[in-house]
Amino acid sequence: MNERDFIALLRPLAGPGGLNLDDDAAVLTPPPGQDLIISADTMVEGVHFPLGRIGGGFSERLLRTALSDLAAKGARPIGYSLCVAWPRERDQTWIKGFVRGLADAQASFDCPLIGGDTTTTEGPLVASATVFGVVPTGTMVTRSGAKVGDDVWFTGTLGLAEIGLKVMKRQAVDLSPSERLASEEAYLRPEPRFAFRKTLRRYATAAADISDGLLSEAGHIANASGVCIDLYGSATKNADFGDDYELLFTSDAANQNELLKAAGVIGLKLTRCGEVREGSGVCVDGVPVTPTGYRHRF
Amino acid sequence: MNERDFIALLRPLAGPGGLNLDDDAAVLTPPPGQDLIISADTMVEGVHFPLGRIGGGFSERLLRTALSDLAAKGARPIGYSLCVAWPRERDQTWIKGFVRGLADAQASFDCPLIGGDTTTTEGPLVASATVFGVVPTGTMVTRSGAKVGDDVWFTGTLGLAEIGLKVMKRQAVDLSPSERLASEEAYLRPEPRFAFRKTLRRYATAAADISDGLLSEAGHIANASGVCIDLYGSATKNADFGDDYELLFTSDAANQNELLKAAGVIGLKLTRCGEVREGSGVCVDGVPVTPTGYRHRF
Repeated sequence: MNERDFIALLRPLAGPGGLNLDDDAAVLTPPPGQDLIISADTMVEGVHFPLGRIGGGFSERLLRTALSDLAAKGARPIGYSLCVAWPRERDQTWIKGFVRGLADAQASFDCPLIGGDTTTTEGPLVASATVFGVVPTGTMVTRSGAKVGDDVWFTGTLGLAEIGLKVMKRQAVDLSPSERLASEEAYLRPEPRFAFRKTLRRYATAAADISDGLLSEAGHIANASGVCIDLYGSATKNADFGDDYELLFTSDAANQNELLKAAGVIGLKLTRCGEVREGSGVCVDGVPVTPTGYRHRF
Repeated sequence: MNERDFIALLRPLAGPGGLNLDDDAAVLTPPPGQDLIISADTMVEGVHFPLGRIGGGFSERLLRTALSDLAAKGARPIGYSLCVAWPRERDQTWIKGFVRGLADAQASFDCPLIGGDTTTTEGPLVASATVFGVVPTGTMVTRSGAKVGDDVWFTGTLGLAEIGLKVMKRQAVDLSPSERLASEEAYLRPEPRFAFRKTLRRYATAAADISDGLLSEAGHIANASGVCIDLYGSATKNADFGDDYELLFTSDAANQNELLKAAGVIGLKLTRCGEVREGSGVCVDGVPVTPTGYRHRF
């Protein structure tokens, strides 16, 4: 498939700022009173995604993981651009699946394609999604605002994507059919926590998504905020598994009830998993640990 | 080199919106009264750039070619993000060169790094630059505004990058030392025509950069504008060579003197190369041609 044919497949995905994918550039201006938030994720087939899976799985996961970063910042998505380097021999069915996966993901989050670039490579497929979101001016939730005395929380269930990956790799796992499905979904279609974004902007002092594991992400927030994050041992069972794309955030201890209520309204599980202390780095029950970070490799 | 070490090298390149590359996202809000313009370019080593060259050449060319699209839209650059998939075995000297090349290019155009993503690949190096610029609201020069009766123009000298590429591939070319240098520069360090952006916004009805050759780019503008672009045979000598990154634009025939004067002030060569007619596609001296498009492959 040549570049022109690929762009023709993508054209129905283009939003107003994408100028029908007829131009060299897109226009994407945030509304007055809003900041534009930008994040990017790159996935390599065989590194971040199993070889030989259908194209729709690859693209949907790519866009969802990229959008997860926007959700962690309290942002609402407004568009994305896509750069793809294709292996020359990739077949049309796979590519059409790839485009369908994008269509599904962008429809779920009302986030149209605005542009990008496409080329071929002798190596594995490499795709980058750059995602754009908005927040009211000055309200982006950073990694750097955690305060001593804050509670530390995470959303959802950690470790599910790890099980899903094992299912996909056909490694022996003793699961019911519904558990298999739920775990594979967690890996293939991580859910950016946009439903929680207003609560995050209102109550969180710092936040990030847990792409490389709980300990690793706690380390990023601790470093950026100049504090120590002390996690409860009971909450760190699946702490160094990656790929969950749940949120880790800090919030003043006075907000516990409000947070649990807001999460309850949208059916989101919330776990208090530690406290912010003076110092640096990450502890578990007061004992310093070195986060290794982990993202699955194939 | 691991991701953390690479980010440490990049950190000095980060602009204010890049949050010291400590966060998952960047903030980049255009000033009031300005539209944000976005474009992206992907380069694959061995496809768009010779294998084995120093890293600085790759990165500088990548950023300059991406910025060229912003210049073609009449925009002023304000930042860029970078996604890189590294071959695992790439040595530190090459990577440091890559970072220096970025530093040189961004300093030339006052365009800081704001973020991105980095990973490893079993295949060749793939890098994407997404560039951000601004124009006064509603003034972006598109591909779609060419009007019947407009003149067609290009900037600079076409075909120079082609010669530069031959020099780099050590193919026999009969050139003086200064000609060799100039042509290699044209390939390695294409000059985004930002100095011409205000003139373009004022006088151009449509514009694009000539990345894939004059005929090919004329075809894009003709299609997007719903017109025929009829080029003078005398001006199309190097019409299907790519990689020049000069500008092709259309403008009302009444603007000839103003255009030549504005170009003269900044020392930019301007060639009137055709006219916009009713119809579709591209002609040379009235005879329809099929643009093949061309970007150098290695």
